[in-house]
Amino acid sequence: MSPSTADTGPRPAARVRLDRESRREQLLDLGVRLLATRSLDELSIDDLAEEAGVSRGLLYHYFGGKQEFREAVCRRAADELVARTAPPEDGDPAERLAASMAAYLDYVVENHQGYLSLLRGAAGGSAALRAVYDDARAALTGRIFTADSVGVVPDTPAARLMVRGWAAYAEELVLAWIAEPAGVTRDDLLEMLASSLPALAALTP
Amino acid sequence: MSPSTADTGPRPAARVRLDRESRREQLLDLGVRLLATRSLDELSIDDLAEEAGVSRGLLYHYFGGKQEFREAVCRRAADELVARTAPPEDGDPAERLAASMAAYLDYVVENHQGYLSLLRGAAGGSAALRAVYDDARAALTGRIFTADSVGVVPDTPAARLMVRGWAAYAEELVLAWIAEPAGVTRDDLLEMLASSLPALAALTP
Repeated sequence: MSPSTADTGPRPAARVRLDRESRREQLLDLGVRLLATRSLDELSIDDLAEEAGVSRGLLYHYFGGKQEFREAVCRRAADELVARTAPPEDGDPAERLAASMAAYLDYVVENHQGYLSLLRGAAGGSAALRAVYDDARAALTGRIFTADSVGVVPDTPAARLMVRGWAAYAEELVLAWIAEPAGVTRDDLLEMLASSLPALAALTP
Repeated sequence: MSPSTADTGPRPAARVRLDRESRREQLLDLGVRLLATRSLDELSIDDLAEEAGVSRGLLYHYFGGKQEFREAVCRRAADELVARTAPPEDGDPAERLAASMAAYLDYVVENHQGYLSLLRGAAGGSAALRAVYDDARAALTGRIFTADSVGVVPDTPAARLMVRGWAAYAEELVLAWIAEPAGVTRDDLLEMLASSLPALAALTP
């Protein structure tokens, strides 16, 4: 069959490859769901095999090994965080920032164990997990400076430094609140998160 | 010799014990100095033995083992951080906060590798290093709420939550600045650090 007559859909080899990729994606999604309620160390290929109803051998075939599997799940979870916290396209800057922060808060609440695991792995010296974490944080904070973004912070080197600190503030505040809400409601917390960015920007040289 | 006639100084056993304790303290001080420019994993009893001119056997006798030695050095380094950042007794609240933040910044600059190591160890899952780190941070942030302290933040559960986030902000800002100053001078950075606390306090419910 020549390319010009290939109008009946993908060729078998391509279809098989797509199926394989989409199957791997499904397995990663399942891994992310398992990670929400357990640590990375507790996330095993055995668990995934059991949940997915497939053999361990097949999972090793897809992921290569335990460490590669965990890293792939972490990267998938981080991608999901970045996607879920994308600010809405419309609205004024403050509203869009507030919506993004609400999505961040909900994500961390829903994926608490997995989020803590990624943090620990990244901070504890795994270069692969550090890269996953740094990429995700760069994507989250980079939005603040893109043309179609929140726009409450001028793009200067000092402001980028401040935003790195602010991201640490937001993360610690959310994790501390999940551990002990201290009488602070979700709405109050969101207000603290969203209002802190312009307040700190105003103090940046 | 009965206790009532023991007026010629400590008894020999007590003197030996004091000597032993002060010797251990000296060795810990030396360990802290070594840690300033190397990671915790790179800090070895061999290095300390060489620097101090004593035998490895004696150091094992003082510290028990490699892990115990590293934890003891970390605790010592954290104690030093807490001591060095004590706010001056006099001055208005803002000046006292600024002096404390300047001491914090200088400490992290001077002990960069060791500080990063403690962070990594604490975040990476070592319960002992986590305790050292948490105790130090609790001491640093707790000052903000003591009667003789800075006094710029009312002592409420929500404010304590905010201060946890602020400590993460300050730490990340300092570490990011050390890695890449981004044209921000030390004075500007100190201003960002000191002014952020009252600004965030004003946004706390």
